[in-house]
Amino acid sequence: MTIREMLEAHPQSTSGDLDAVVGCVEACSDCAAACTSCADADLGERDLPPLVRCIRLCLDCADICDATRRIVTRQTASDAGVVRAAVEACVVACDACRQECERHAEHHEHCRICAAVCSRCEQACGDLLVSMG
Amino acid sequence: MTIREMLEAHPQSTSGDLDAVVGCVEACSDCAAACTSCADADLGERDLPPLVRCIRLCLDCADICDATRRIVTRQTASDAGVVRAAVEACVVACDACRQECERHAEHHEHCRICAAVCSRCEQACGDLLVSMG
Amino acid sequence: MTIREMLEAHPQSTSGDLDAVVGCVEACSDCAAACTSCADADLGERDLPPLVRCIRLCLDCADICDATRRIVTRQTASDAGVVRAAVEACVVACDACRQECERHAEHHEHCRICAAVCSRCEQACGDLLVSMG
Amino acid sequence: MTIREMLEAHPQSTSGDLDAVVGCVEACSDCAAACTSCADADLGERDLPPLVRCIRLCLDCADICDATRRIVTRQTASDAGVVRAAVEACVVACDACRQECERHAEHHEHCRICAAVCSRCEQACGDLLVSMG
Repeated sequence: MTIREMLEAHPQSTSGDLDAVVGCVEACSDCAAACTSCADADLGERDLPPLVRCIRLCLDCADICDATRRIVTRQTASDAGVVRAAVEACVVACDACRQECERHAEHHEHCRICAAVCSRCEQACGDLLVSMG
Repeated sequence: MTIREMLEAHPQSTSGDLDAVVGCVEACSDCAAACTSCADADLGERDLPPLVRCIRLCLDCADICDATRRIVTRQTASDAGVVRAAVEACVVACDACRQECERHAEHHEHCRICAAVCSRCEQACGDLLVSMG
Repeated sequence: MTIREMLEAHPQSTSGDLDAVVGCVEACSDCAAACTSCADADLGERDLPPLVRCIRLCLDCADICDATRRIVTRQTASDAGVVRAAVEACVVACDACRQECERHAEHHEHCRICAAVCSRCEQACGDLLVSMG
Repeated sequence: MTIREMLEAHPQSTSGDLDAVVGCVEACSDCAAACTSCADADLGERDLPPLVRCIRLCLDCADICDATRRIVTRQTASDAGVVRAAVEACVVACDACRQECERHAEHHEHCRICAAVCSRCEQACGDLLVSMG
């Protein structure tokens, strides 16, 4: 994947564990994409009212994942407190979004996929936090 | 300001204190703008190396402020935990960016202004957190 | 407003007309805020299906306005072609969003406000394009 | 990749060619990641001044790619004019960023990779525009 090549070509060594950083960046990227698409797929469903909360949480999760992806990607002059705060917010957003998507997973395949992607992102964020000590 | 009018026209009453929500959204918007501009102004200075950390923290702060602004703006089916996590991350980013900008405030007017805007955003985020209980 | 102070403190003179740049940045910021809020207010309305297209166009318009705001704000090593392309895309998004919001302006005050803000942003983007020659 | 699964699970058929949409979304995602990382890697290099324009264009390209990725991902109530305008702006940003990165490709591996990713994104955007007719 491109992000691993980019980080390996970076003039400064990766702050923390390279695998954990790459895993978090890729998971945030995937999760932002899934949440943007899930909110949009919800909006295209016939029975909209039960999906309003899902749309809302997917929009929030996409916004946090995109911000977190950018912050974790950056390796120059990192502030560990800022990285940690962003990744922790991402865990909370992914967890809330996953729970809501799971409620619709039986009826909507896009919610089922999105819940799984949120779960992987939550895990990857948690792994990065652990690796940061 | 537009955002107050928009929230007053919203079909659902604002979650939490309207003034605190409006204050946070406006402060995040101002802070994202100042940080985007400060990173760019740093990049245009002749003596770049001492400003590298300032650029980095301004980019991070702009990303978090933009995400937080969107999340706090939304009032439909809010998840208090997600809102709180985003606002808390914003406080951390604003504080780190303010401290770094203050170090350059004497030499660079854009850093002086940006530090003041970060400080106001940190305060507005704190006020919202207090109002959320 | 902060952005004018920031641009006046920038080490490099503003590419193009300062008033036009400030006007465009402020209008994009206002429009992104209004569109984010209008999409969310739509989502909180009881009769959702007629508002689906409004939500979609508001989400798109907010994303383009946020990207355009950042690009127009930056003054170091600007590429006129990139700035122009972003501002032109912003005009198209604002125009489409305004038209859709106007269709609901009679029933929803948030759509009426949002349409007016989109219209101002379209105008400010057009003014910047003219000033760029 | 997740985005293909998400679009196949969408209640509405993809506007235009599914392969072209998936290709564009994946390329924009990859390009935003590469540009965010390249700007940051530039910032970590010792000899910064020659890389200022590269940083600037990478930041712009990342912002446009992220907005375009979200807009092209959405399939509910699409406005072809808005989609086209965003994708066209993305082509311009990728082309400018690729040209600048190529100038540094010999000395900086991250610029070489980023140039290649920008080139692929430009191609994927062009393919989508062709498929839209």
